[in-house]
Amino acid sequence: MKSIDESMYALVCRLFPICRSITGNGVRETLRIIAEELPGLVIHEVPSGTQAFDWTVPGEWNVWDAYVLDPDGNKIIDFTKSNLHLVGYSIPVNKTVSLSELQEHLYSLPDQPDAIPYITSFYQERWGFCVTHRQREQIKKEGKYTVMIKSDLKSGYLTYAELLIPGKCQEEIFLSTYICHPSMANNELSGPVVTTFLVKWLLSRKRKYTYRIVLAPETIGSITYLSRNLEEMKKQVIAGYNITCVGDERAYSFLPSRKADSLADKVALHVLKHMHPGFKQYTYLERGSDERQYCFPGVDLPVASIMRSKYGTYPEYHTSLDDLTLVTPRGLKGSYDVIRKCIECIEADEYLQVVTLCEPKLDKRGLYPTLSTKQTNNLVRDMMNLLAYADGSCSLLEIADKINVPMWNLIPIVKTLKHKKLLLRNH
Amino acid sequence: MKSIDESMYALVCRLFPICRSITGNGVRETLRIIAEELPGLVIHEVPSGTQAFDWTVPGEWNVWDAYVLDPDGNKIIDFTKSNLHLVGYSIPVNKTVSLSELQEHLYSLPDQPDAIPYITSFYQERWGFCVTHRQREQIKKEGKYTVMIKSDLKSGYLTYAELLIPGKCQEEIFLSTYICHPSMANNELSGPVVTTFLVKWLLSRKRKYTYRIVLAPETIGSITYLSRNLEEMKKQVIAGYNITCVGDERAYSFLPSRKADSLADKVALHVLKHMHPGFKQYTYLERGSDERQYCFPGVDLPVASIMRSKYGTYPEYHTSLDDLTLVTPRGLKGSYDVIRKCIECIEADEYLQVVTLCEPKLDKRGLYPTLSTKQTNNLVRDMMNLLAYADGSCSLLEIADKINVPMWNLIPIVKTLKHKKLLLRNH
Amino acid sequence: MKSIDESMYALVCRLFPICRSITGNGVRETLRIIAEELPGLVIHEVPSGTQAFDWTVPGEWNVWDAYVLDPDGNKIIDFTKSNLHLVGYSIPVNKTVSLSELQEHLYSLPDQPDAIPYITSFYQERWGFCVTHRQREQIKKEGKYTVMIKSDLKSGYLTYAELLIPGKCQEEIFLSTYICHPSMANNELSGPVVTTFLVKWLLSRKRKYTYRIVLAPETIGSITYLSRNLEEMKKQVIAGYNITCVGDERAYSFLPSRKADSLADKVALHVLKHMHPGFKQYTYLERGSDERQYCFPGVDLPVASIMRSKYGTYPEYHTSLDDLTLVTPRGLKGSYDVIRKCIECIEADEYLQVVTLCEPKLDKRGLYPTLSTKQTNNLVRDMMNLLAYADGSCSLLEIADKINVPMWNLIPIVKTLKHKKLLLRNH
Repeated sequence: MKSIDESMYALVCRLFPICRSITGNGVRETLRIIAEELPGLVIHEVPSGTQAFDWTVPGEWNVWDAYVLDPDGNKIIDFTKSNLHLVGYSIPVNKTVSLSELQEHLYSLPDQPDAIPYITSFYQERWGFCVTHRQREQIKKEGKYTVMIKSDLKSGYLTYAELLIPGKCQEEIFLSTYICHPSMANNELSGPVVTTFLVKWLLSRKRKYTYRIVLAPETIGSITYLSRNLEEMKKQVIAGYNITCVGDERAYSFLPSRKADSLADKVALHVLKHMHPGFKQYTYLERGSDERQYCFPGVDLPVASIMRSKYGTYPEYHTSLDDLTLVTPRGLKGSYDVIRKCIECIEADEYLQVVTLCEPKLDKRGLYPTLSTKQTNNLVRDMMNLLAYADGSCSLLEIADKINVPMWNLIPIVKTLKHKKLLLRNH
Repeated sequence: MKSIDESMYALVCRLFPICRSITGNGVRETLRIIAEELPGLVIHEVPSGTQAFDWTVPGEWNVWDAYVLDPDGNKIIDFTKSNLHLVGYSIPVNKTVSLSELQEHLYSLPDQPDAIPYITSFYQERWGFCVTHRQREQIKKEGKYTVMIKSDLKSGYLTYAELLIPGKCQEEIFLSTYICHPSMANNELSGPVVTTFLVKWLLSRKRKYTYRIVLAPETIGSITYLSRNLEEMKKQVIAGYNITCVGDERAYSFLPSRKADSLADKVALHVLKHMHPGFKQYTYLERGSDERQYCFPGVDLPVASIMRSKYGTYPEYHTSLDDLTLVTPRGLKGSYDVIRKCIECIEADEYLQVVTLCEPKLDKRGLYPTLSTKQTNNLVRDMMNLLAYADGSCSLLEIADKINVPMWNLIPIVKTLKHKKLLLRNH
Repeated sequence: MKSIDESMYALVCRLFPICRSITGNGVRETLRIIAEELPGLVIHEVPSGTQAFDWTVPGEWNVWDAYVLDPDGNKIIDFTKSNLHLVGYSIPVNKTVSLSELQEHLYSLPDQPDAIPYITSFYQERWGFCVTHRQREQIKKEGKYTVMIKSDLKSGYLTYAELLIPGKCQEEIFLSTYICHPSMANNELSGPVVTTFLVKWLLSRKRKYTYRIVLAPETIGSITYLSRNLEEMKKQVIAGYNITCVGDERAYSFLPSRKADSLADKVALHVLKHMHPGFKQYTYLERGSDERQYCFPGVDLPVASIMRSKYGTYPEYHTSLDDLTLVTPRGLKGSYDVIRKCIECIEADEYLQVVTLCEPKLDKRGLYPTLSTKQTNNLVRDMMNLLAYADGSCSLLEIADKINVPMWNLIPIVKTLKHKKLLLRNH
């Protein structure tokens, strides 16, 4: 049986070739494969033209082939070699153009001459091709170029997936990720794949909270989802994470919710501080993914982002260089571990009240170890500190922050002290 | 037509020779000239002996001439050459004195041998002359010196001026400056002159707020004014500035209100941070002008001070060196611009509420520019950030501080978004 | 008559030889000597077996003699030479043991070869001897060693002392110290001795507050005391200090109450900041004395600690090196001065309200000195600042912190201003 690291990486590899966009069969195929891992996943299809707050679901876009032939009939740009070659949402084209007209429809990056850029035009009808700058410099022969784009942009559906995993109570933890970029690895597949494996873990354990998992195209997908579920979510969601850019091996990073004071924020900062103290902290002003919708005024869901290399900040971002070498099994697993630890902390967080006045006499309950080593000293010190702050007004997370130890070190101590009837949950 | 810079400097020059004190004809003459610029200015005369809280309006002091003759009959100190030569509120004298008796009545500054110091004795009867230290060192001949002071200290009036400029609402912005120092430029005339030109600008524009402008002698004048107007001002004043030391070209400085948390404080800090980030920040412990009265317990008006070189901190302060070379057209105009910007910010400040749930679709309203340049990118970024924080609980000033842009960059965006019905004022 | 410094040191010397523990005649003898200084001291005896919250008062321990004879009959360890040689609460023993069995009952410090460690076993029956490491290295001859411990551990009493000194009001200041360590000076006798002399001073002055003084064995003593007095103390105690480790000449240190925001905390920080700005600040996580009980959840008394070298941080701690050379008259007096200043500040603290609107005219009341020197300038500056903040919402301590002067500089100014009817206590 494969390790989680390898299984996640294998799923990234399997999903990588699919040509996704904000609508279309690439999204459906991606969700179908993920549903093999998560049998309960529910697929929703929302018709083009549906109103979603201030937005309208656009037409559905599909593409079968796209290429450019040079004046000699050589296929110089070929969608089948990389789906990044075609500008997203390009309209169908079948014509010959001059070199200069072709140039107006080409996109490349002079500063990154070996990278194909990722370009889209979702809401204005255009066509275009993206090429490496080296490739573009070879296209200089005057003459007639044949442009062929076998695409389809017409009324159809926007597709997203949802999974509700019940817990003991109705309060919810919300995990969101997106499935709308073509062949890119960190800023696309790392998110849905890590989310998939977090869900598999969630399904295998006892849950205090209900979990709401959403895989949807970025922006229009999250807006559409919110337009159908906001009222319920505002009542129930106590913490959430937008899961994106979680696959490379570089430093972790954190982007808070708008108000930066939710449980999701506090837990993420606590976990990162203890697991990866060198993490990079962004502000909400540097946002750029679905937290823009989840934290918008009036929506105000408690959603933060834990990432590795944040979108927009790493050189491979939105190019063909964001590939299967940038994302690694180790990179995926590190993020999985961090977010899973966050969920474990939220599940274990509660207000605690010590039952004695003055310190309890621990030795008569066998809680003072006879043999004193550095490790047991830390355990006793943590136990005494936990008791000293368990005044009913502090949650376990707050106590952990006050006494400056990872919350997960305290969880077994809480269990012991509850068993010994020294500590109660404060309702 | 002269520029504002030149006009302000010309007014400083015209007012400079007048011998002002806390009462007397110098104050009247100063206010008469200012009233030529501000026709609606109302002059108030308060009789000597009038009670003003814990204080009493003193006798009125006027002076026609003052000099000292040496034993040979040479006029060695001459009030007509500089009104700083005479100690303020000197009683009438006409007698001969010995050299040593004369010395007891002379004031000079050994460390600034070319400066005549500014000395007053408002509340204790005295006479004296102020001279440069070089001048004093020449006064060494034994013999009889003739001292002549043709002054007058008797029951009269304290004079101050007031202007109320109505706005759309009764809430007020309060501007205060003082007119009680003789020939000094930065710590005297810069304040009333910049205030005069701010009022001219205010009269030319639409105003949300009512404006209360006061020109009065420092301390006894502001106390007298408060004793007659405090109740009304406590109800209506939402922000105010004490305008003093605003004429030189050195760094800007800020002195907060006592509690340092008023709208006047917040706006001044916002404006200075963006216009002159190198400004110097003082605390209320370093106060020394009429904010001592305006912010006194029980008075508690929201009055802060924006200055250039603060009183008491620059070498020319309270000497003849604070003259028409220290104050410049450019120095005056810089201060005028800063305080005017503060007033514009207060006028534009309001609580804002975005009307959509999730981000609005800006392109369908033509708010996403087709051609993307650095400048338009900043505009779009500021617009998105403004919307993201316009949750009804933040004022425009608070939003500007959160998103770290000058409030005046946001004012046209607010106008556009209100026009597009995306943003509302939150009442 | 001896100075306070010398008197305190003399009392430390007199109490030093007594063999104290958490119960027994050493405690009684110590309290009897202190009662010579404080005639009103009340001695309480609590029977063994009495329940005190989660704890039980242990049996009473007394010891008359203890020694070890080597195989040749030489007395190689002798309790009469140092009471630290015997492990505290050692059970009676009279037997011969082999060298290796003896070694299992010996304690020494290889890193401090000239120090006898201080070891106890209050709640588990054991016997043992503590020796310097050099001494231990000499004990190597095989053969029969005679172990004699003439001790007694049986039902008896726990002894503590209490003094309530009435003031004008029922609100209390609480001073606690402990009397349970054998011959050690800083971490034992400095606390009760400084407390004794603070009480002598308190008895000699007028008091606003009532004072509650407790001398009890650490931990079990404070828990026992709280179990009998908590309800009343929670109603009445407004500030308290645990007085320990106050006898050496090294830097002062401060350990806050659990919530770190009580009057006791604020006053101690104010006093140390102005008297000894180089003081060391600990957090509640570094606690280790009776504040563990006084600040426990549900107890929540406002008790902080002012110390010199804190327990656990100095090399002589809990060894025979914590002796009469470490503690000095000057060390004791410095701590006495600091805690006395804290008490004076608490006694003088009150909410203050200026009676004038605008600044009062001070010269007409003779409060503006004619001759202006640096010192009088500071006095006037402090007076003006005090008036400027005396708005009825700030206590004198808070004003002193705002205007950054020692509170004791303001106390005479408050008196003057009250006398001049310019300042009132705000009830």
